[in-house]
Amino acid sequence: MKIAFIGLGNMGKPMARNLLKAGHALTVYDLTAEPVEAQCAAGAAAAASAADAARVAEVVITMLPSSPHVREAYTTANGVLAAAQRDALLLDCSTIDPHTARAVAALAAERGNAMLDAPVSGGTGGAEAATLTFMVGGDPGAFERAKPVLASMGKNFVHCGASGNGQVAKICNNMLLAISMIGTAEAMMLGAKLGIDPKLLAGIINTSSGRCWSSDTYNPYPGVIQTAPASRYYTGGFGAELMLKDLGLAVDAARAAKQPVALGGLAQQLYQMMNARGDGGKDFSAIINLFSGNVS
Amino acid sequence: MKIAFIGLGNMGKPMARNLLKAGHALTVYDLTAEPVEAQCAAGAAAAASAADAARVAEVVITMLPSSPHVREAYTTANGVLAAAQRDALLLDCSTIDPHTARAVAALAAERGNAMLDAPVSGGTGGAEAATLTFMVGGDPGAFERAKPVLASMGKNFVHCGASGNGQVAKICNNMLLAISMIGTAEAMMLGAKLGIDPKLLAGIINTSSGRCWSSDTYNPYPGVIQTAPASRYYTGGFGAELMLKDLGLAVDAARAAKQPVALGGLAQQLYQMMNARGDGGKDFSAIINLFSGNVS
Repeated sequence: MKIAFIGLGNMGKPMARNLLKAGHALTVYDLTAEPVEAQCAAGAAAAASAADAARVAEVVITMLPSSPHVREAYTTANGVLAAAQRDALLLDCSTIDPHTARAVAALAAERGNAMLDAPVSGGTGGAEAATLTFMVGGDPGAFERAKPVLASMGKNFVHCGASGNGQVAKICNNMLLAISMIGTAEAMMLGAKLGIDPKLLAGIINTSSGRCWSSDTYNPYPGVIQTAPASRYYTGGFGAELMLKDLGLAVDAARAAKQPVALGGLAQQLYQMMNARGDGGKDFSAIINLFSGNVS
Repeated sequence: MKIAFIGLGNMGKPMARNLLKAGHALTVYDLTAEPVEAQCAAGAAAAASAADAARVAEVVITMLPSSPHVREAYTTANGVLAAAQRDALLLDCSTIDPHTARAVAALAAERGNAMLDAPVSGGTGGAEAATLTFMVGGDPGAFERAKPVLASMGKNFVHCGASGNGQVAKICNNMLLAISMIGTAEAMMLGAKLGIDPKLLAGIINTSSGRCWSSDTYNPYPGVIQTAPASRYYTGGFGAELMLKDLGLAVDAARAAKQPVALGGLAQQLYQMMNARGDGGKDFSAIINLFSGNVS
């Protein structure tokens, strides 16, 4: 298929490479030259703008850092909507706010283009291994059309309902993830301070009602789970900066909907505290260090 | 075995009954007459005080509402320690603060009595069905001696280390449970408000990193899990008042240890808000109603 790929950052680069590997004809666009040159060396064609990339594409994929980038890439004079073919499928894999996702998809629909929001989970590791999970919002028929393309970049595709719901699913899951992680950190540190062995405590929690992914798979206390970032000085994994971005989207969406998120709001503040201490580059489970001076 | 059972409340009553059923000789004591009479009709003997109950017992079991009750039942002139036989095993199944548990166990040790803290989970349903889980702190030898008695009242016995650690495990687990439950409630309500189907959202969370017992087993959104209290108007289950008690113990223990519990502290306030609204008798998952006027 002829695919336009716009946005060659940490995630976009390996995703585009996997599309090339799968035999698709790729035209790429990015504001910086280096990643464009790298993709061209691997067989892609370079475009001069988002519009230029989209012009002959059957599928347009965007992977951008935030809502304003997505709005600009689609809706300006040099944007995707100004040039895309009538039957081109538009697929935004960025994580942005649901409101913007719905607004841009509505503009696309006015032009006759089906557009899906399809934010991912799985990180750069998942992008490289083509094992990403896509949470997809939009028309079910468009979702079916997207599947073969998504299959070159990931392993799981979940249809979440109407336009914007991919974003809703992602920010709700990640807000709960942040809350569970901080809760696990607080419980583990409190238990350790009160004298219980952290591995023993984790074992009890993991067979009880406190069990969660943050306790049984990704425990933030060093040494409890050997494969978790906590056991390698909080390197790799899911960066605290990215968690802070997702919490910002959740809290903003909640504010727009006048929907209270009490623990979600405090979780955002705690991740801001972690970032303010200069720890935004560490794995998000390093939030446990807010609760102790000496576990890492 | 000759067992003294002190404290015949909602939990103590069915636990004592199961000990009688298992063929143990029971002497019971409680401040109110009615439950004592009921146990006597079922074959127990009545005692005039905690000391009187303990005098000839091989095992003394207490199931009391709070730390001061436990301190009084053991350490006053009419208390267990004034009368218990030298080799009697003392087993406190109350949920109290770890500091009191350790202090009373230390007094017992001075008299030569092994004492275990053994708070339970499983609620009145688990007490009646003899399927309780016991989290036990204290000497490993005493834990082995206690097992046959525990087996008449429950199904799982977890040794959590030294004295007080049963309480530590319970309050840490339940603090994390409260945080996960509120986080799940916030995520579910935010998602619903933003337009995603609650069952679909729960399904996505339950196969993602937000998964927790509160989302996959006890989801607070009505209709998501048919067997959960949310699907029967928040009746049955684990009362919000009891969760508030456990959060109080966790936050107090954290304060005594100067250990921060940011989400734990806010969780306590939110359960106090729920109780102030008159909803303390509902299942603790009804906390979701703080985040919406109309889901139940």
